[in-house]
Amino acid sequence: MARDAKATQERLLKAAATEFSTHGISGARVDRIAAAAGSNKAQIYHYFDSKDGLFDEVMRTMIVDRTRDIPIDTTDLPGYGARLFDSYEDHPEVVRLATWHRLEHSRADHLFEPVVASLKEKVAAIAEAQDRGELSRRFEATTLLGLVLHLASIWTVTTPEFFAVLGASSRKMRRQVVVDSIRTILGEDPDPKLVAPAAGGGRDAEDR
Amino acid sequence: MARDAKATQERLLKAAATEFSTHGISGARVDRIAAAAGSNKAQIYHYFDSKDGLFDEVMRTMIVDRTRDIPIDTTDLPGYGARLFDSYEDHPEVVRLATWHRLEHSRADHLFEPVVASLKEKVAAIAEAQDRGELSRRFEATTLLGLVLHLASIWTVTTPEFFAVLGASSRKMRRQVVVDSIRTILGEDPDPKLVAPAAGGGRDAEDR
Repeated sequence: MARDAKATQERLLKAAATEFSTHGISGARVDRIAAAAGSNKAQIYHYFDSKDGLFDEVMRTMIVDRTRDIPIDTTDLPGYGARLFDSYEDHPEVVRLATWHRLEHSRADHLFEPVVASLKEKVAAIAEAQDRGELSRRFEATTLLGLVLHLASIWTVTTPEFFAVLGASSRKMRRQVVVDSIRTILGEDPDPKLVAPAAGGGRDAEDR
Repeated sequence: MARDAKATQERLLKAAATEFSTHGISGARVDRIAAAAGSNKAQIYHYFDSKDGLFDEVMRTMIVDRTRDIPIDTTDLPGYGARLFDSYEDHPEVVRLATWHRLEHSRADHLFEPVVASLKEKVAAIAEAQDRGELSRRFEATTLLGLVLHLASIWTVTTPEFFAVLGASSRKMRRQVVVDSIRTILGEDPDPKLVAPAAGGGRDAEDR
């Protein structure tokens, strides 16, 4: 019985993720979600209270998954940004869900507490690495985290018009822009190959 | 007669901008737009063909206005970014419209040609400044434009959760993050006050 309930809830969450990602919150239809999950509207209201409650649960599940899958690495923030980039490329539906959430749902009095806790941990990790002198202090820890997260998401907000001007772009190239821009924010050169060899141990040697 | 038609169209576009910004494209109601403009649905279809046609015209008008108001300045890209930031802060409805457009409407086979033309001009201006040695070549011109535009918009995608972690944030502080991060991307130090004085002409002197 409990196992059946769990299976139904999981089917509903999966169907809801697809529906919300495609149509947004107000555009989503509860009856379509129920039909896609082989369930009914009454069960949705029973388990999730409302369409908003269902959306919140979809967001919560996705956020928990993503946070667990991609921990921050303060010794390699460009690599961390690249892993975030990869997750956005592999799961555009999560990016769409987060964007709908921002447009339709997001309010200062309705915070996802697990996200707040996760951000606080990341800021603390960055601040500690800065205190140990392992990370650039060009930007204060919260700002630096914000810049890393924002640069990792650059391609998720790129318009078709910009892509038209850019011309051919490979995933590898897009990933490299994320890595290089975060390196630059950290005060590193974007591409070591472009840096002239240091005559007798200059910055190049210091970096190693 | 022609003046009346123009006035009606302008009222419809204004009402449509409010409706689309609040509810998105599929969420927008043509009858609400007509009522708010003191017009009727038949006139909307007459002038704009469809709800999609009306949305396109709203976007086009906004984009033309914004592009004209904020020309690029390759001698001061951080200042250009700050002016974009100001326009986003002053007109959040334009940011929302562009986001709905991206979620609901944006397709590679449906480009806003004025945007493509404007981006091409900006890329050309950056490439020429790079060729003249007036602008960092750390990033290729299109990428650099993309980074400047993206960093200028950092606060438009900031979640309430991030703001909760950030604590008090003034517009001045947010603007400074835009300026400092673009300066860093250009290979400039974010805040000269934080840079230790160079002992006898190091990098600091070269930069001048």
